[in-house]
This record gives sequence, structure tokens and C-alpha cells, in this order.
Amino acid sequence: MDRMVNKFELAKAELVATPSLVVDLPTVEKNLNRLHGYAAEHGLNVRPHTKTHKSRYFAELQVDHGSYGLTVAKVGEAEVMAHVSNDILIAYPAIDPERRRRAAELARECTVRVAVDSQYGVTALAAAAEKAGSTIGILVDLNVDSNRTGVATPADALQLAQQVSQAGKSLRLDGIFFYPGQIWAPADQQGESLQAVDALLAETIALWESHGLTAGIVSGGSTPTAYQSHLVRSQTEIRPGTYVFNDMNTVRAGFCELDECAAAIICTVVSTAVPGKCVIDAGNKTLTSDRNVLHPDSGHGHVIEYPQARIVRLSEEHGEVDFAGCDALPRVGDRVTVIPNHICPCVNLQDRFYLQTPETIQTLDVDARGMLS
Amino acid sequence: MDRMVNKFELAKAELVATPSLVVDLPTVEKNLNRLHGYAAEHGLNVRPHTKTHKSRYFAELQVDHGSYGLTVAKVGEAEVMAHVSNDILIAYPAIDPERRRRAAELARECTVRVAVDSQYGVTALAAAAEKAGSTIGILVDLNVDSNRTGVATPADALQLAQQVSQAGKSLRLDGIFFYPGQIWAPADQQGESLQAVDALLAETIALWESHGLTAGIVSGGSTPTAYQSHLVRSQTEIRPGTYVFNDMNTVRAGFCELDECAAAIICTVVSTAVPGKCVIDAGNKTLTSDRNVLHPDSGHGHVIEYPQARIVRLSEEHGEVDFAGCDALPRVGDRVTVIPNHICPCVNLQDRFYLQTPETIQTLDVDARGMLS
Repeated sequence: MDRMVNKFELAKAELVATPSLVVDLPTVEKNLNRLHGYAAEHGLNVRPHTKTHKSRYFAELQVDHGSYGLTVAKVGEAEVMAHVSNDILIAYPAIDPERRRRAAELARECTVRVAVDSQYGVTALAAAAEKAGSTIGILVDLNVDSNRTGVATPADALQLAQQVSQAGKSLRLDGIFFYPGQIWAPADQQGESLQAVDALLAETIALWESHGLTAGIVSGGSTPTAYQSHLVRSQTEIRPGTYVFNDMNTVRAGFCELDECAAAIICTVVSTAVPGKCVIDAGNKTLTSDRNVLHPDSGHGHVIEYPQARIVRLSEEHGEVDFAGCDALPRVGDRVTVIPNHICPCVNLQDRFYLQTPETIQTLDVDARGMLS
Repeated sequence: MDRMVNKFELAKAELVATPSLVVDLPTVEKNLNRLHGYAAEHGLNVRPHTKTHKSRYFAELQVDHGSYGLTVAKVGEAEVMAHVSNDILIAYPAIDPERRRRAAELARECTVRVAVDSQYGVTALAAAAEKAGSTIGILVDLNVDSNRTGVATPADALQLAQQVSQAGKSLRLDGIFFYPGQIWAPADQQGESLQAVDALLAETIALWESHGLTAGIVSGGSTPTAYQSHLVRSQTEIRPGTYVFNDMNTVRAGFCELDECAAAIICTVVSTAVPGKCVIDAGNKTLTSDRNVLHPDSGHGHVIEYPQARIVRLSEEHGEVDFAGCDALPRVGDRVTVIPNHICPCVNLQDRFYLQTPETIQTLDVDARGMLS
């Protein structure tokens, strides 16, 4: 890993407390311009997944850059993001009673769409919407390759779509939902996989049409596949999340450069007493235990000042760093800058961001943090 | 893994939202009685580590059961726990300026002790205490086997102790700190390791005494070694954390029975669309990605209702469960009860506990959640 110019030097010097999550706003701006520019070029709507930043502020930036709506996982997040956009997709089965009830109530105030992959889900959401006097838009979740959720075949998707279309005014059939979550191949090698996804979608859409049903929205995508989305020609909108900040998962997979990482944790070296290692004040309560998706043995993040260092072990508040191969060692009290493997759950562990420009640093609450319901 | 009586059935039936963290208070009471009874029998003080529960309520229970003081990792936690006990140990190097300043200010109001393993740490804390007009108690951190923090030898420990004793009234030399964090052998096979720890401590204490210095407190221990603490005869106090709730780490290592787990996550099955698996609404934003310490391939927690099930993969909000080997499969909308691998970081992801007795359920804020500084 090469050394990068450390744009976080101002935050390192100015912050009073560590570990702290710093976001470089000029880099966010570049990341938004790149993705939204690509989408505009290819006529794709963008509905960013707000799970990454859990913040109204960044959602507003995404809307300002032309987002068509917003994506959330949980209804608590939906309630926050409804202050920013009047078109919210809950990209998650809303099954438990509380989640359904709140989704249905929110649908009185704005457009709420939910991804569904079971008859139970359709029936339950219809009942909740009927009780709330609202209409929920339904996207039928089709399993294209992630094998996590989603019905298996176009015929199964048709069956659910028919159930939705017969549910009366509490539900509205909006289209198809998919998540190509297993595709982590280099962008220029995703073609075959994405063409298979497109073929499955096209077959499903044709089957629906032959039964008089329309998939007005075909919603898919992720950050790893974001810039190949044009290969899935049936797709009308994409839902990348991580692209706003990037992380070592997207760097090591080749989806961005290290300098396109907008978020980092500023840490303090708190111990060098054990020979051959040092300890930083970021453990798994800061960095999470998430390993790098493609390079699980690369350590728990990237230390910008010491590109050869490896964060070898995390306990809750301790990060143990191996500096073998580095030119010099940090001393107790020094600060270092860590790009996490997976930025989304890291943000969720923080109460606040430190937002930096080249001149200023200010704090911002992570206002949709938690929100497990 | 055997089936246990599911004491969480009331919570499963009554809770409106999932995923939710439920704590069974009668089990907590048993866990506290067992540990504090053992410690009393052996004349050991207990200074529980509050990182596990991050809650004033549970800290008060621990004090009611005879705790001598409380342990925290971060100064934010110390500020919360100072409402419960007037003797707080920050079991962590307080190096960055904000942490030092707040520790020194808190020391004006109660006894604050800090574990230190560097000259930098001693000098920095002395300066902070001098500025605050307070006195901080210092425990010299000795590396007994965890190779995480701690000075290497009795001579190094003496050197730091001498620095502390010469620092004037801002610091007070309180004793020795150690953490046997690598000892996960079965309790009845820990003897040799703990005797080696004891020998190193005894050598250090003798060296200090030969230089006119006293280790009034010798603070060590963890939940895995808790019930063998009497083998470390130099030890005056123990700092277990996990014992209050237990988790699959302590169960699978043989330190407790499954029925001694007091905390569980109630989840809803949200998808069974992909053949051979089902998805629960607890991913790594609920369960963390922490693997089981001794059995890393055992999955991301234990499903009480389906003891043969394995939680094979987590994304942020999805837990994918393999039910091969189970007699029956759950259906969408069913609830299941999961004992996490590592309860401490799970609690830190929750805004509230649901506290249950056989008759009632009430909520409680996790009031020291976060607190990274």
C-alpha cells in the first residue's frame, strides 16, 4: 500500500479527543460528483443507502447532488430520512409488528416503499397499511446472486406481484428489488455476472408484463458494482451506500483509490511497552471486528502514516499494531490516522462526526445512529 | 449444544420491536452471588469492569453485592460510574490530552486510579493532576502474558514506580496492574499459568519493597480466570466484566453453563426465501462480527430454540442462519433468541436494555454506551 498525502493532518493536530471519526468534506464532494455524474450519464436514478452515514446532513448532500430518493434498512432510519426526502425505500423485510406499524404510519406522510420476499410480508404490510389508512409501495425482492434474501425465480416473483396487486389500495406494486451483494470482482470483470443478473431481471419483467403487471422501478446495485450499473439495462435506479466515504474494502478491491477515502479514525498511540508492537486507542468498539472482504489477513484497517504497519489484533478498546517493515516507530502520545475496513458499522459506533475542510473542523451528530427497529 | 429452557419466552411474546437486548435479572442475581461469594471466601476485593454493561443500574447492583470499586476503560465511562462508586480505576492508558484532563478533574471528586505503562503516561498524568489540583492514583501495568500493554520486567515496573513516587502530590503510587488476557484454558488447567503470573508479581513486589515502595493494590483478573484467582496469591482485587451476563465465549470455554447467560437478543425471522437458510433481523450492527474465541467456526451466536442451527454469515442488518440438522424450520415472523458470542460490544450497540423478571419487562437506557474518549 502506497503512502498518501494525509489530508487529515489538520484534524490530527486540532482534535482534543481520540478516537474520533473525521470526514473530509472536499473528498465527499468528489465522491458524490463522480457517482452522480456517472448515473446521470447513463440515465440511472440514484437512491443512496443511508446506512453508511446515518446522517441527515449527508443525505441532504446526496439529495442536492440529484438523488431521486433515499434507501434505509430500518424504519427508525426511515423516520429520520423522511425529513430529507419524500421518497424512502426500506430495503429490508419489514416483518415485526412495530416496524410494520411505523412504516405504515410514515406512509401517510411520504412515499414509503418496502422490499418484500414472502407472502407473510405482503399480508402483514397490507394489514398495517390498512390500519394506518396509508398505501405502501412494494418492490418484490428477487435473489439474483447474493443468496441472502429474495425469491428464487421469475415465477415466484410473479406470484408475489400478483398477491400485491390484489391487496387493494393498501399496497401498490412498484417494481423489482435486487442486491448483487456477492459481486466483488474487479469492475472490468463484472460483465458476465451482471449480464446474467440483467437476463434474470428481463425475464421477470417480461413475465410480469405478460400478466398485465408493470415493474416501474427496478432497483439494484451496490458500491462494488456501481460503475458497471449500465450493464444491467433493466435497472432504473441504483442504491450504493459506501461510495460517499469509501473504505479499505473498496480500496483493496480496486473500486477507488486510497485518496478517495473521505472518512478516517484519528487515534492516539497509548502504549509501546510490548516490544515489536504498539497499541492505539481504537479497538473493536471503534473499528468493529469486520475483516477486509477480499483480503481478510490485511489487518483491521490502514494506518496512513505507516503504510507497512498492520493492525493485527483488536480487543474492545485496544488496537495492536505490528510495525515490522516500517522505517520508524511511533511514540506514545503520537497520533495516527486509520482508514477502517468497513466504514458503515464504524460510523454506527460514533456519536458524532468531525467534519473537516482545509480550514475548519466542526462536529455533527450521527443522528440516525443505532435505530435497530 | 444442548437445548436449554428458554427463560426469554415472556420477552419474546411481549416485546413489540426486534432486535432487542433482553437481560434476565434473576440470572444476573445468581451470577453476582456466585462471583462475589467466591471472592469473599478468598478475601479478594472485586472491582468489576463496567465495559460489559455500560450501565449505572448494573454497576449499582455490583456495588450492592460488595464491590470494592469499579473499573472502566474510558474517562467518559468513569464520569458516569463516579455517580455509583467513589473509587474508579481507569484500566487503560490515559494518554490523549482530553482523557487526561477529564481524569484529573474527576479526581477532585472521587478516587481515580489509572493503569500506566510508560514514562510519558506518568509525566502526562502528573501534569494534568497538577493543573486540576488533584491527586491521581497510579497502578503500574505489568505484562504478565497478554502481550498487549504493560512493562516487560519487574525492573521496568520499579523504574516507573520510582518515577511515580517522585512526582510529588499530583500522583500517588497505588500498586500493580495486570491482565491475564491470554488465559482461556479450562479453569482446572490454569494452575501453571497463574502460578507463573504470581511468581512474576511476587518478584516485582519484593523488588519494590527492597526500594521502599509498596504495592497496596495488586489488581488483575478477568472472567476466564475469575474462579482461579486464589492461585494468584499476591493479588488483592479482581476485575471481571463478562461474568455479570456471560456469553457464548464463556459458555464454549467451559466457564459457565448456557443457563447462566443472562443476556440475549430477541430476533425476528424476516426471510426464508433462499432454500436451506433463514435470515434473522440481527446482523453485525446488532451481534458484532466477533467470532467465538475458542471456536471461531461455531457461528455468530447460539439460537436457543434451534440448538443445532448455525449463524453462518452476518451483514449489517441480516443474520443468515443454517438450519441443517434441526428438526424443524422457523417461519417468517417467528421469533428466536440468540446468545451472542461476545456480549460486551453487543451491549454497546444498543440504546436500551429490556430488563425481565418472571413477571415484568421494563426498559433501561444503556447510559454509558459509546464514551470512546
